[in-house]
Amino acid sequence: MPTPLMLNAFSPEHAESLDSRTREMIARRQRVLGPSYRLFYEHPVHFVRGEGVWLYDPDGVPYLDVYNNVPSVGHSHPHVTAAVARQAATLNTHTRYLYDLVITYAERLLATFPPELSNVMFTCTGSEASDLAMRVAKCFTGGTGFIVTEAAYHGITDAVSGISPSLGVHVPLGANVRTIAPPARYRADGSIIEDVGGVFAASVEHAVRDLRRHGIQVAALIADTIFSSDGMYSDPAGFLKPAVATIRQAGGVFIADEVQPGFGRLGTHMWGFQRHDIVPDMTILGKPMGNGIPIAGVVAKPSVLEDFSKRARYFNTFGGNPVSCAAGLAVLEVIENERLMANAEDVGRYLREGLNKLASLNSCIGEIRGAGLFIGMDLVADDQLARIPSPALASRIVNGLRERHVLISASGPHGHVLKIRPPLPFSRENADHFLAALSQVLAEQR
Amino acid sequence: MPTPLMLNAFSPEHAESLDSRTREMIARRQRVLGPSYRLFYEHPVHFVRGEGVWLYDPDGVPYLDVYNNVPSVGHSHPHVTAAVARQAATLNTHTRYLYDLVITYAERLLATFPPELSNVMFTCTGSEASDLAMRVAKCFTGGTGFIVTEAAYHGITDAVSGISPSLGVHVPLGANVRTIAPPARYRADGSIIEDVGGVFAASVEHAVRDLRRHGIQVAALIADTIFSSDGMYSDPAGFLKPAVATIRQAGGVFIADEVQPGFGRLGTHMWGFQRHDIVPDMTILGKPMGNGIPIAGVVAKPSVLEDFSKRARYFNTFGGNPVSCAAGLAVLEVIENERLMANAEDVGRYLREGLNKLASLNSCIGEIRGAGLFIGMDLVADDQLARIPSPALASRIVNGLRERHVLISASGPHGHVLKIRPPLPFSRENADHFLAALSQVLAEQR
Repeated sequence: MPTPLMLNAFSPEHAESLDSRTREMIARRQRVLGPSYRLFYEHPVHFVRGEGVWLYDPDGVPYLDVYNNVPSVGHSHPHVTAAVARQAATLNTHTRYLYDLVITYAERLLATFPPELSNVMFTCTGSEASDLAMRVAKCFTGGTGFIVTEAAYHGITDAVSGISPSLGVHVPLGANVRTIAPPARYRADGSIIEDVGGVFAASVEHAVRDLRRHGIQVAALIADTIFSSDGMYSDPAGFLKPAVATIRQAGGVFIADEVQPGFGRLGTHMWGFQRHDIVPDMTILGKPMGNGIPIAGVVAKPSVLEDFSKRARYFNTFGGNPVSCAAGLAVLEVIENERLMANAEDVGRYLREGLNKLASLNSCIGEIRGAGLFIGMDLVADDQLARIPSPALASRIVNGLRERHVLISASGPHGHVLKIRPPLPFSRENADHFLAALSQVLAEQR
Repeated sequence: MPTPLMLNAFSPEHAESLDSRTREMIARRQRVLGPSYRLFYEHPVHFVRGEGVWLYDPDGVPYLDVYNNVPSVGHSHPHVTAAVARQAATLNTHTRYLYDLVITYAERLLATFPPELSNVMFTCTGSEASDLAMRVAKCFTGGTGFIVTEAAYHGITDAVSGISPSLGVHVPLGANVRTIAPPARYRADGSIIEDVGGVFAASVEHAVRDLRRHGIQVAALIADTIFSSDGMYSDPAGFLKPAVATIRQAGGVFIADEVQPGFGRLGTHMWGFQRHDIVPDMTILGKPMGNGIPIAGVVAKPSVLEDFSKRARYFNTFGGNPVSCAAGLAVLEVIENERLMANAEDVGRYLREGLNKLASLNSCIGEIRGAGLFIGMDLVADDQLARIPSPALASRIVNGLRERHVLISASGPHGHVLKIRPPLPFSRENADHFLAALSQVLAEQR
């Protein structure tokens, strides 16, 4: 049986080239965590400390983090860690008692959303949030069908792995699930799609009809509003609008997965769906929400939650606990106080300019997409017109950057899209550092 | 539509009897968290601080905690909160990089298990762990059927809510799920079951046959080894053995849900299954694992995980993160350093003796069950032989204790079983305090 697809995974066949300390650590890890766990890189990295946009290995060597979106306001941010320490030492309990922090945090969080999205339910992980959104969507619509993009990732519960094709061919999709092409501007043959939104909506319509032909009423279209695992599709802003109209006309709801684009990463807006000028029926939040402290949730229109709430109580033991809410609140404060959205927009644009310059010098660089500090860059065979994906090159670049102490990964169904997604305090100087390292690694490929 | 069953839930019809501060807080909460959330008690309690076995309201009034198992080593335990604060300020990342803490913690945790159970996979919640165990069981056995007890609770994902009948009749069980009676010593008619283990195993056998008759191969029997939501069934120790043999003979696995009984609460053993002298194929861990910091997991035999690991990679963004592992490690250290298992055994026995004395004076007290600091006490109509469940009395006692600043709840399919489950540092003095309050509340019921 072939190993399931995972981009940039360590393969035990490379173990011999590792130093003995790393080899031993991997062996210990393998012994207790078992074979399902994967490490990044041909030469996995060991970290002992994090600060801002830097991670440090045991020898004190700094690695520039151009990849991790969970420590979104910076590794070990003192405002967040102080809030966590303070709250843990004061009170940590659950939502069947009253305490202020879950209410205050919910109010502050919801204030960043359009007024229609006025209820939040807290979970601990994005997977749990996706799973809850699926349960609510089924209850609200009476349907059971789900539509997702071809290389979508929404999480790992039994139900959610069934709507996450990027987990690989050995994890079966649900019988009620249909996949559609992501809203890309280029077809596989290199021809250009003029009306990205119209084509995407037509795919939704086609999937709805196919579900119906199988006796299945659609419950929801779920989409990551930056299409991260599909390869990052951001433009033209607004392309989601026709698809949202289509799914609603078919009796389904639109669920915006904001786990990756959310919390200001896209610069101009707090939430990815806002770039598309739409209001989802539900949104799924996760990863950066607590800067690494487990907290996630579903933000929804109250009308969508109503029927579910009558049928099913919801209690998540750790969901909305005071310590996680303290982390969440501190994250919102840092985003505001340090003007991280403006920084994401400014440095993101600077970074894309630098990448475009590199593209003009390197024919192996294809399209560059993204918004704010969420950037995808296609790597293609050395004939730009053909745009043939080059996952091998992407892998060499990812590992080449790791050897230069710069962290990054790849994405997309072919694994040929560099995923550039640093913590939000990433500066222009950090961008220059990254661009210089990338330029060197590209030069080595010639 | 009737409101779904939840024991000891606040009902908005009681809002008028609340003070204005509480009423306003509940209104704010309702506005943002929506209608799916439930509070405990006719008069919900507001907490601002926790320490040891005590929770404090905004006026500084202490409440004795005889209920909460999540802050298992005591609310805001300084050893745990210091470990969390230290680690959060140092490094918080994920398992695709190498770091020591997830390995060291996994080694320490697995050392408390029989050697056959030598792999751990980390999740953030017990629900996620149950969900993962279901996925693994299906992969390992090729079956899809699950057997659970009549009032089982294993979590809230889409799949796991389908094996959690205690969520109420409006949350449908899976089509491949069969429920069986818990291993009680009394039948509904009051007659005594001599061979609890044999009868329980026969129920498993019957469920396996029924699944097969419907073309479904069984994947697993999942049982909470203290049967908390069924009403707490503990004795005679060993009664699980025949059922485990039966499920294995049928080609299924046995999954021990240790979320509630685990981590030393039962006094004599770290894990509930050990009281029954069995080795499960998988165990599910959760609630007390990080003393409130979200961490949970599946501990399994490597052979059971093997096929799943070949087909599906497993990555849980927050699962096994250094901060949660630091909390987990500190919890293990406190259990050992403060001899909390010995305390659970000693104070648990003392408490049961006190409860038995109360039972001899109050005919409304039926059977008292449990082990260590996990005790269930039946409340019955005032004719002990008939043993007619009295949920109304249980509710009056739970709310009467709350008015005396003692926290407790009820359990079981009829809601007539007092659930006595304090943090593990609960002392004999605390037990006396609780018994005196309970005695007063019982006296008021005459």
